[in-house]
Amino acid sequence: MILVLKQGTTPERVNALCAELKEKFGVQTWPSTGATSTLIGLIGDTSRIQIATVEMLDDVSRAIRVQEPYKQANRAFHPEPTHVTVGGVVIGGQRIVVCAGPCSVESEAQIRGVAADVKAAGAAMLRGGAFKPRTSPYAFQGLKAEGLLYLKNARGQTGLPIVSEITNPGQVELFNDFVDVFQIGARNMQNFELLKQVGQSRKPVLLKRGFANSIEELLMSAEHIISNGNPNVILCERGIRTFETSTRNTLDISAIPVLKAKSHLPVMVDPSHAGGAVYLVEPLSKAAIAAGADGLLIEVHQDPKAALCDGNQSLSPAQFAELMKKLKPVAEAVGREL
Amino acid sequence: MILVLKQGTTPERVNALCAELKEKFGVQTWPSTGATSTLIGLIGDTSRIQIATVEMLDDVSRAIRVQEPYKQANRAFHPEPTHVTVGGVVIGGQRIVVCAGPCSVESEAQIRGVAADVKAAGAAMLRGGAFKPRTSPYAFQGLKAEGLLYLKNARGQTGLPIVSEITNPGQVELFNDFVDVFQIGARNMQNFELLKQVGQSRKPVLLKRGFANSIEELLMSAEHIISNGNPNVILCERGIRTFETSTRNTLDISAIPVLKAKSHLPVMVDPSHAGGAVYLVEPLSKAAIAAGADGLLIEVHQDPKAALCDGNQSLSPAQFAELMKKLKPVAEAVGREL
Amino acid sequence: MILVLKQGTTPERVNALCAELKEKFGVQTWPSTGATSTLIGLIGDTSRIQIATVEMLDDVSRAIRVQEPYKQANRAFHPEPTHVTVGGVVIGGQRIVVCAGPCSVESEAQIRGVAADVKAAGAAMLRGGAFKPRTSPYAFQGLKAEGLLYLKNARGQTGLPIVSEITNPGQVELFNDFVDVFQIGARNMQNFELLKQVGQSRKPVLLKRGFANSIEELLMSAEHIISNGNPNVILCERGIRTFETSTRNTLDISAIPVLKAKSHLPVMVDPSHAGGAVYLVEPLSKAAIAAGADGLLIEVHQDPKAALCDGNQSLSPAQFAELMKKLKPVAEAVGREL
Amino acid sequence: MILVLKQGTTPERVNALCAELKEKFGVQTWPSTGATSTLIGLIGDTSRIQIATVEMLDDVSRAIRVQEPYKQANRAFHPEPTHVTVGGVVIGGQRIVVCAGPCSVESEAQIRGVAADVKAAGAAMLRGGAFKPRTSPYAFQGLKAEGLLYLKNARGQTGLPIVSEITNPGQVELFNDFVDVFQIGARNMQNFELLKQVGQSRKPVLLKRGFANSIEELLMSAEHIISNGNPNVILCERGIRTFETSTRNTLDISAIPVLKAKSHLPVMVDPSHAGGAVYLVEPLSKAAIAAGADGLLIEVHQDPKAALCDGNQSLSPAQFAELMKKLKPVAEAVGREL
Repeated sequence: MILVLKQGTTPERVNALCAELKEKFGVQTWPSTGATSTLIGLIGDTSRIQIATVEMLDDVSRAIRVQEPYKQANRAFHPEPTHVTVGGVVIGGQRIVVCAGPCSVESEAQIRGVAADVKAAGAAMLRGGAFKPRTSPYAFQGLKAEGLLYLKNARGQTGLPIVSEITNPGQVELFNDFVDVFQIGARNMQNFELLKQVGQSRKPVLLKRGFANSIEELLMSAEHIISNGNPNVILCERGIRTFETSTRNTLDISAIPVLKAKSHLPVMVDPSHAGGAVYLVEPLSKAAIAAGADGLLIEVHQDPKAALCDGNQSLSPAQFAELMKKLKPVAEAVGREL
Repeated sequence: MILVLKQGTTPERVNALCAELKEKFGVQTWPSTGATSTLIGLIGDTSRIQIATVEMLDDVSRAIRVQEPYKQANRAFHPEPTHVTVGGVVIGGQRIVVCAGPCSVESEAQIRGVAADVKAAGAAMLRGGAFKPRTSPYAFQGLKAEGLLYLKNARGQTGLPIVSEITNPGQVELFNDFVDVFQIGARNMQNFELLKQVGQSRKPVLLKRGFANSIEELLMSAEHIISNGNPNVILCERGIRTFETSTRNTLDISAIPVLKAKSHLPVMVDPSHAGGAVYLVEPLSKAAIAAGADGLLIEVHQDPKAALCDGNQSLSPAQFAELMKKLKPVAEAVGREL
Repeated sequence: MILVLKQGTTPERVNALCAELKEKFGVQTWPSTGATSTLIGLIGDTSRIQIATVEMLDDVSRAIRVQEPYKQANRAFHPEPTHVTVGGVVIGGQRIVVCAGPCSVESEAQIRGVAADVKAAGAAMLRGGAFKPRTSPYAFQGLKAEGLLYLKNARGQTGLPIVSEITNPGQVELFNDFVDVFQIGARNMQNFELLKQVGQSRKPVLLKRGFANSIEELLMSAEHIISNGNPNVILCERGIRTFETSTRNTLDISAIPVLKAKSHLPVMVDPSHAGGAVYLVEPLSKAAIAAGADGLLIEVHQDPKAALCDGNQSLSPAQFAELMKKLKPVAEAVGREL
Repeated sequence: MILVLKQGTTPERVNALCAELKEKFGVQTWPSTGATSTLIGLIGDTSRIQIATVEMLDDVSRAIRVQEPYKQANRAFHPEPTHVTVGGVVIGGQRIVVCAGPCSVESEAQIRGVAADVKAAGAAMLRGGAFKPRTSPYAFQGLKAEGLLYLKNARGQTGLPIVSEITNPGQVELFNDFVDVFQIGARNMQNFELLKQVGQSRKPVLLKRGFANSIEELLMSAEHIISNGNPNVILCERGIRTFETSTRNTLDISAIPVLKAKSHLPVMVDPSHAGGAVYLVEPLSKAAIAAGADGLLIEVHQDPKAALCDGNQSLSPAQFAELMKKLKPVAEAVGREL
């Protein structure tokens, strides 16, 4: 971190400020005085120092962070890519991992049917919502614990590991018994109580980017989980909120290479929520793989027209099987497998 | 809700669709066939119907909502403005209510000192954070239950009702004993588990708009609280995320008259978080009052330079007293009192 | 267009309104009265009717456009994809067209050198700026007419058609003599005087999306050009402005399939400006091709470190040649050629 | 400007880099080496140096601008507020200046009528569009030169100075004869050819902020005009584009105090375009005055329902007169006159 001092700061005040910084933050200081202004470089662990705090100090005009405020999620301190293993499935390796399933678990028959179909088409994991956060209090809120049980049964039948969204810190124990991956939804990316709880487990966490959160904030939320003890974090880009209204969200395709450069964590993409329309799933899936994603999260429902949520962005099993065939050559074109 | 059917839909299929809509959603249907297309009007309670769901139906090209999807927060169904009473303080009435205090409770002496100062300057309520959601896991997270106790003691001393942020559905009982208003922070505006819990209480709720949530979504979150049984909701505009970086957030000043037109709930404004800088608090506070806000939330710290969070946007007690003097004529100019 | 009337509008006023609409806008009207409200469907060419205008009419509560406000750029009225031919190069066909070159023409030697290099690597067109719109009045503004001359000479040497940005309606004649494609830059997408001028030519126009313009606005600007007589419009997505700051702009990858669905015009992508960094050019180029783009615009400079503008996002000729090799299998994976 | 060098840069390379910077940019260099990295401070006029250019240099890891890239619009170099005088009207002084009139001039009778009415109600200037940039090529484009003539006649009758939008660099001579203030519309804020032309005049320029342009970009566009010789620039905030759709744009009320802090130029606000609805004009006008605006731009039409554009946001003369009465006490509450 570099502090730019106000013009006219005297050498005595520079010394006093350096002493204050050392004591308060435990950092080394490195002042240097130029023709018109003095700078102080701070050396040591500055990730705990808030910009706003040091900018309040007398004589400080501006503080500039030279290093990112996250460490454990940072590629600079962990150059090798992290592989997260779920059941026998490796996320972040050579193979692109496709996780498919319905927005909501609606019945045991429904989830067993979808599970069999997506497995046959090449999916490596099964997704399904049991606790559904919904904008409207009048919309279907999910089957809750019953839904988790049906997901577990579907895993028993197919062997596919289960991903499901957790929405309350009090549910960690329940989810521990039923799912293989905790999904943190976009609306909870900064629900720090929830991040702390899943951070105290060792079970993998699929962390979705909030629709208005920056890439740095996503990595700070990953840092919350890792710093609580759980290194098994999978990042997920699912579209951000912009002025454009012709798609449900704007898929930030650049987030894939940016996250790969800044972090060692694997990156998945959710083209179903990003686009919000069936016809966009194929082009966005291809684009995500081409840009370097490690996996996809795709909504599949046996009868999209009858789905209790998100039917307009869900593929039928036949559409999903067709999609998997089309994605294969794209994966191979960028040196991956599907 | 109006459904626009696909061109070429036969009368038989229009009839079948009407029957399906009646059975599925319990609404009346009103088809009308024009030269090139057929429309179906849906009459009854359409707030439970998702646009996406009906757009998946065969023959439907597009669904258009004519009424807002919220009812209990809607001014159309409740024309009189709601007054929320906290202690003896009325929010939404003639008097503009100022709630002041530090970002975080740091010690008992600190909060008692600020409480006395802001009361003397004319504040009607005391705010202070005990559980702090922080982007960085390395930043100060608050004094937690101890902070709540100090707030309660400050109320005992000054009589000022207490507003403090709740971050976990499991904390409702604890907060019930200590605070007068549950604050739902911007990051938790769509934490529906938390909204449900505070909705099952009767204690007033200050609901802050998420920094990337639309006005409609804010009102839908209010609907979550009211529909669970708690009508005492205060809305709060605190700035939204835009491309502009010269302020911490962009205060959406228009949200005040828009919320007043769409809803009967009182509206407060937080100029401290919106602007993120001391020099912006005065102009944004004046603007908020001029635009019709019912109250303000202002950060005050006895020594902003030493604050553990948000010091750069906190006023000193002297600055706050000065601000209150300047706001008085603006309130009077728009027919209110301070 | 559908008009929703205010509750309580009498049949007499419905009739009077229908008469007014017919006379004012030359459309057929199709009223239909339901239990709680009356709708009027407007049939005919409603693209000339502004929503705001009809919403001002007595008795009208809301106007809803059912059809897009553009016609000549609309796929619904022109189902076959448009191929734009420049020199012998076809844009919008089976082959993906890569247009490469420097941000600015800096000297004749420079542009001749780049032209030879990009041609050797497989580029089909040459881009280069002669008139440069720059945010700062102190930045390099381009070589102007001299730059155009050098571009023409580079075409003479290599045969590559020339794309260059026009910034002033008064330059059309000059550009007519020197370039093969008028480029309309993002900042001028709604410079309607300029659109009108290039619309009166028959020379192809590369129309870049403004960084804060919606897809519908992009198509309305295309409509300005086509309705003035020039059907040879190539659309170009180059990133939009969002809250995310880790990339120069946010490439809206979904714009490719959305534009393809809504319009018959070919779509190119500029990964250099979208990402604003060399390391992002390859993943974004691959993603664009995978998502269905018809071409790419790529900045190449012989010595990016010495470039007078945009050096940080320019590839060297060697990097460009390497990129072309990597894009080939991606194009083939989606059934195209490079 | 501060350059942060890459780790491991040797002293010899630091020296060589300093020499290169001196020669290339004519600045003084001030290197300082700390424990882990070396910084170089650049002293002199760095407003001509692009961040991107120096970040391409070998050994440079990052360049940080300490000063704003604009000088002539910068309050730091010009602490006294600028007063722009138009006819006898002073903008930026004690009195808040209201400029009112229709979106478009539609006929001589119309503009004469409005002019008389807004003058009677207290407006100090008359606005009206003659050349209208319209998103749709099928919308009314204005009366063009004829409209300017009618405006001039209305000035003859009322004495009110005229503000009208210029859209083409080729129109400067024409406008010189007819109007008192060149208005640069939001869509042309970065039409640098047009800025250059109006910069070569001495006639005042009302520069509207682009709906997706940052405050810094607005000041850079002012710099384009001033650096061409015209110091008479009036800035205008008119709403920015965000994700919120319940208002036409989002009025960035904070832009007023931010612009006042960063620049010496007067600041006006356009509440009509910002809100896009009649009911928002009053609260936004009051808020703008309360936040420190020097003037307002308000759309007034004698028969808003019959207006050829923007009728839904235009006040009638009676509504305007009423508004002026309500604004008076707000202006006085903040120590201004109306």
